[in-house]
Amino acid sequence: MNALFYAVPVASILALTFAVIFYCQMKKEDEGTPTMKRIAQFVREGAMAYLKQQYKVVIIVFAVLAIFFAVLAYGFGVQNPWVPFAFLTGGLFSGLAGYVGMKTATFASGRTANACRKSLNGGLKIAFRSGAVMGLTVVGLGLLDIAIWFIVLNAFYPASEAQNLVIITTTMLTFGMGASTQALFARVGGGIYTKAADVGADIVGKVETDLPEDDPRNPATIADNVGDNVGDVAGMGADLYESYCGSILSTMALGASAFYAVSPEMQMKAVLAPMLIASVGVLLSILSIFTVRTKEGAGMAQLLKSMSFGTNLAAILSGVATFGILALVFGTQSSDWWHFSFSVVSGLAAGVIIGKATEYYTSHSYKPTQKLAEASKTGPATVIINGVGLGMVSTAIPVIAIVCAIVLSYLFAIGFDVQNMMDAANLSKGLYGVAIAAVGMLSTLGITLATDAYGPIADNAGGNAQMSELDPEVRERTDVLDALGNTTAATGKGFAIGSAALTALALLASYIEEIKIAIDRIPGALINGVNAASASIQDVLAEFNVSLMNPAVLAGVFVGSMMAFLFCGLTMNAVGRAAQKMVVEVRRQFHEIKGILTGEGTPDYKRCVEISTKAAQHEMLVPSLIAIIVPVIVGIVLGVAGVLGLLIGGLGAGFVLAVFMSNSGGAWDNAKKYVEEGHCGGKNSECHHATVVGDTVGDPFKDTSGPSLNILIKLMSMVSIVMAGLTVGCHLL
Amino acid sequence: MNALFYAVPVASILALTFAVIFYCQMKKEDEGTPTMKRIAQFVREGAMAYLKQQYKVVIIVFAVLAIFFAVLAYGFGVQNPWVPFAFLTGGLFSGLAGYVGMKTATFASGRTANACRKSLNGGLKIAFRSGAVMGLTVVGLGLLDIAIWFIVLNAFYPASEAQNLVIITTTMLTFGMGASTQALFARVGGGIYTKAADVGADIVGKVETDLPEDDPRNPATIADNVGDNVGDVAGMGADLYESYCGSILSTMALGASAFYAVSPEMQMKAVLAPMLIASVGVLLSILSIFTVRTKEGAGMAQLLKSMSFGTNLAAILSGVATFGILALVFGTQSSDWWHFSFSVVSGLAAGVIIGKATEYYTSHSYKPTQKLAEASKTGPATVIINGVGLGMVSTAIPVIAIVCAIVLSYLFAIGFDVQNMMDAANLSKGLYGVAIAAVGMLSTLGITLATDAYGPIADNAGGNAQMSELDPEVRERTDVLDALGNTTAATGKGFAIGSAALTALALLASYIEEIKIAIDRIPGALINGVNAASASIQDVLAEFNVSLMNPAVLAGVFVGSMMAFLFCGLTMNAVGRAAQKMVVEVRRQFHEIKGILTGEGTPDYKRCVEISTKAAQHEMLVPSLIAIIVPVIVGIVLGVAGVLGLLIGGLGAGFVLAVFMSNSGGAWDNAKKYVEEGHCGGKNSECHHATVVGDTVGDPFKDTSGPSLNILIKLMSMVSIVMAGLTVGCHLL
Repeated sequence: MNALFYAVPVASILALTFAVIFYCQMKKEDEGTPTMKRIAQFVREGAMAYLKQQYKVVIIVFAVLAIFFAVLAYGFGVQNPWVPFAFLTGGLFSGLAGYVGMKTATFASGRTANACRKSLNGGLKIAFRSGAVMGLTVVGLGLLDIAIWFIVLNAFYPASEAQNLVIITTTMLTFGMGASTQALFARVGGGIYTKAADVGADIVGKVETDLPEDDPRNPATIADNVGDNVGDVAGMGADLYESYCGSILSTMALGASAFYAVSPEMQMKAVLAPMLIASVGVLLSILSIFTVRTKEGAGMAQLLKSMSFGTNLAAILSGVATFGILALVFGTQSSDWWHFSFSVVSGLAAGVIIGKATEYYTSHSYKPTQKLAEASKTGPATVIINGVGLGMVSTAIPVIAIVCAIVLSYLFAIGFDVQNMMDAANLSKGLYGVAIAAVGMLSTLGITLATDAYGPIADNAGGNAQMSELDPEVRERTDVLDALGNTTAATGKGFAIGSAALTALALLASYIEEIKIAIDRIPGALINGVNAASASIQDVLAEFNVSLMNPAVLAGVFVGSMMAFLFCGLTMNAVGRAAQKMVVEVRRQFHEIKGILTGEGTPDYKRCVEISTKAAQHEMLVPSLIAIIVPVIVGIVLGVAGVLGLLIGGLGAGFVLAVFMSNSGGAWDNAKKYVEEGHCGGKNSECHHATVVGDTVGDPFKDTSGPSLNILIKLMSMVSIVMAGLTVGCHLL
Repeated sequence: MNALFYAVPVASILALTFAVIFYCQMKKEDEGTPTMKRIAQFVREGAMAYLKQQYKVVIIVFAVLAIFFAVLAYGFGVQNPWVPFAFLTGGLFSGLAGYVGMKTATFASGRTANACRKSLNGGLKIAFRSGAVMGLTVVGLGLLDIAIWFIVLNAFYPASEAQNLVIITTTMLTFGMGASTQALFARVGGGIYTKAADVGADIVGKVETDLPEDDPRNPATIADNVGDNVGDVAGMGADLYESYCGSILSTMALGASAFYAVSPEMQMKAVLAPMLIASVGVLLSILSIFTVRTKEGAGMAQLLKSMSFGTNLAAILSGVATFGILALVFGTQSSDWWHFSFSVVSGLAAGVIIGKATEYYTSHSYKPTQKLAEASKTGPATVIINGVGLGMVSTAIPVIAIVCAIVLSYLFAIGFDVQNMMDAANLSKGLYGVAIAAVGMLSTLGITLATDAYGPIADNAGGNAQMSELDPEVRERTDVLDALGNTTAATGKGFAIGSAALTALALLASYIEEIKIAIDRIPGALINGVNAASASIQDVLAEFNVSLMNPAVLAGVFVGSMMAFLFCGLTMNAVGRAAQKMVVEVRRQFHEIKGILTGEGTPDYKRCVEISTKAAQHEMLVPSLIAIIVPVIVGIVLGVAGVLGLLIGGLGAGFVLAVFMSNSGGAWDNAKKYVEEGHCGGKNSECHHATVVGDTVGDPFKDTSGPSLNILIKLMSMVSIVMAGLTVGCHLL
């Protein structure tokens, strides 16, 4: 094996080591007063109890799927024997990433609140370093799983043979599918949990009773805080673990197949490159994490500057380092090294642009959200209409950015050979360029995720401060940290959503390669008249009549677009139903428990936690399972052409829908904050109530349905890849 | 020319004759009390004034575009000399259809109200026959324009030569583009007008002041009633004129090119078939209109039965007649006649299923809308969340129905020759089958549009009754008629939206044919190595590298999906802005005009009419123009492959988004009506207010953004077709 590979396990161990160090540092801090400890304990227990419940359901699903894969592999021989195990480890590591992140967050939020009693800087340090635990755990576990599987599979299928590298990398894609499956359950289940509690708490607490956020008199407030942890922390951790691994694995798989016809050396280089870019990214992330610090008494502007400095530094260094890494891997004899490096830069640039656009449309420092807040003067209906309009219009810039990234990363990779851009060799190179751009975007996930995960920790610290009835100054400090988190998270979202689109394209190409492998298993089978092993992507498309005018492709595009909407509709309905139950329960408690509003009676927090837990477990199954089942059905009915249509339709509509829902939700949230800061009448005014309605509607938009779409898009692709053998074996059209 | 063709002008004249007869019958009726006359006059004047203003703006746009086409045709020779004129007549006739419909509606609503003073049946008769005027005018003018152009172009390019029939039919597609352009302005402008007034009137009138609908004390009430006419009548008329002509013209164009290689006779038959199906449909519509009548004292159930009987009769007869027509046109020697007939039946079945699904999801006789109404118990936020969820989930059945229609109409057309489904000959035949299915769906538009246009007439009659302070019994009767209209309109919507998807697919094929023609103009040019004239669809796709893995195609799909959202976002924002202005004005009048709420002061209706007029004119330009400009830019930057991606992405996302927005809006509207009928606390309860917020949000969903998407999808295709010469001449990728 190439010696450079060993940088991967080294980077992985380094990341996990620093995660442990930061975790221990955090644990040493004081958790504050007995009340603070009690509340933190309560939230921690609730969160852990839920996660256990969720994992119980997920384990059953995984067991069923693993058995199914085992039957396909051992019974029918349409898959290799490692598939069921790879699938299981992907799920396991994804779950572990979420678990560790959540464990850290629930220990950190009380400590952050306590540190904020002294200074803003102290709070920042704990919250950010705890976020870094999650960031480093995600990338560390991701690289660890990748390194282990690469070593194990290499032992059985020596990578020196070109065909083996294709088998290794496509087998590893099933561990990506495991990660995606677990991530979808975590995002959907966590999303339903947190938003049922949040919406319920807001409707009765804020709108009907004028209680402040996180008021201990609100029975749903503990459930709300638990929800932040299971949704925004554990869900996001699992989500980004799958994004991170997905981008690396799909690029490896594409590299192995794209350069199969060129030479085994080139193939190995193409497989190594994404792993090395990610590994160096880990080092740069750790380095940059240490730059995030402020002087005592620093204001919000300085805090923001410090954090932005860290993430921007990591991104710039990563861009620069890519040139070095790729020169080392590909050598400087040919021009590949700088061609692919510029592909990575195109991806990074698109990520930054999407992040800035997200910030512009959702931060209340800019006009769109301010105007949305103004719309509250004419009531909740105009807030909703304008918010939907804002979100829909905001899709333009991200789409243009991603379109430019796709076209440019492709063209850079083929050295702008536009005349022959679709020749077999150029097509493989170009698509590899698109895939590696996604790896570049996520290479510094270690720090970008730290700035993202830090938000919910600060949010929960605020909750703890409020419930422990600390000095209002503490809450103000945590609010500053929280608001900051919203802004820095925008950049992270840009990278996550942009990389999802590029990764999905790489998976599309991998699907076609997997179809080739499946046919190659049939003795003597030809593809478009060519020997299966040496067929090109174009040959496969021709063999299966994958033309834009094929009715199966068109039917697939319609079904794919519909899937994005159906999935969101089901999750929206789930949140709606659960929130209604929560509202009824909170109203009941206000009505039946005496002295609850004066602080003399104690609300029944447990009942609300139970409602959220039950609803999440019950409601997450259907939307998640259709994501797995529909690609299989489409494959059987409409064949390869239909599946490709499905994936493209789902990608196009899903990406735009995800941006729309996330941005509408973000803007509603911040419009409410803008009013709370004293504009348009301030807190408890009619305008405030109108924006709370907007915020409430936005909750499932931005935290349940919207972010799950990224996973849905990729999971549908991975299921199709894993099921390629079945599709080739039996299909109607 | 084939003698059968003369059925087309005959059917056209017959339709227009009956339209005149029904119009005169309606005009003979009494318009009621002096107050009723005054109010009707006021609404009529407002509507006509707006339409004049709108047409002034549209004329400028048309003049600019016609000059542009003239330059392309006469200056660069990339188009034929008839294009600018065909474009202008399409716009003219579409505008005329809207004008006549609106003129009829504004005369009919007062008379309907007056007839309702005596009996329900009398009101039904006037409203329905007036709706029939619009239905017959649309189909009559459509067939007239088609017949005239076919005769004129035949004189210059005798259809006996195969190449000429291709020129004739593709030239006629530009008149489709003219119709679509006008329709988009009418739908967007009218939609913004009506919803700004409606939303404004509802927010201040219903929510803040608890006034009933159409109360004369509400300053926005006249604007609201004017809006129903310019949006729901004139806008819908122009919209369906473009759908009707679009389906026929695209099938003609596809028929001419698909059977070009077969024989001139077969080609002529394929061009005639859609015109004849439409012509016979006109006769069946007229026949069925006469079956809609009820006995004196009939209840709502009987009324509904009577109307459903009429539309179902027309649909069934049309399905049966198709077999006869196609046997006559194609002859019974080959199996084409019944193959294509079954394609039409697949389309009709899909239309019926979509209609039923629409009814199920949006009518308050069924669970989904009833549950939505129940969500009002927990406030406006859950109403919005559940409504969005309902609309998104409701996309599943229509998508599955349309997917089945596409696949089945294709397979029927090629006699289920699945093994060779993508051979050049089968591809042409199959796509022709999809196209003619759309014609079948719209062939009975004469009567389905009557049941659709009748709704706003009844709605306005109710407005007139309320404002004239007639006996409440009259309002109750008009409400029955209105509610009935909502249900029967669902079927009409199913056919309209389903046919749009199928027509768009046919236009996609026409685009490829037009590219072929454009290349054929270049002396000696080859397509995929074949002589341009004899190249197949597959050759064109290969020549331009139109493969699913081409980054230009993928980029196009993203942009196409985004276009659907951007367009809706812009129109939503337009309504939001205009509604806010309206709310501010109505509040001002309530505040400043003394005695306005006691009925002693007179509201300044004119000011509100002005606000809507200005907003509509101002705001309709940008969304409409981007629909024309973006396909041109994509063509220049990304070439043919990019344009095809754009159209497919726009079609997939646009269709699903349109169903979602229409159904969410419809369900919100009916959930409100359900509460008003006394459920969940009834009128003026908290629940009612919550559902009014839902209804208000739903207004632009279902009457502005949603229905415009159908036109957007087709207009982008038509612009691409007309600009094909330019795309071939200059593109970057």
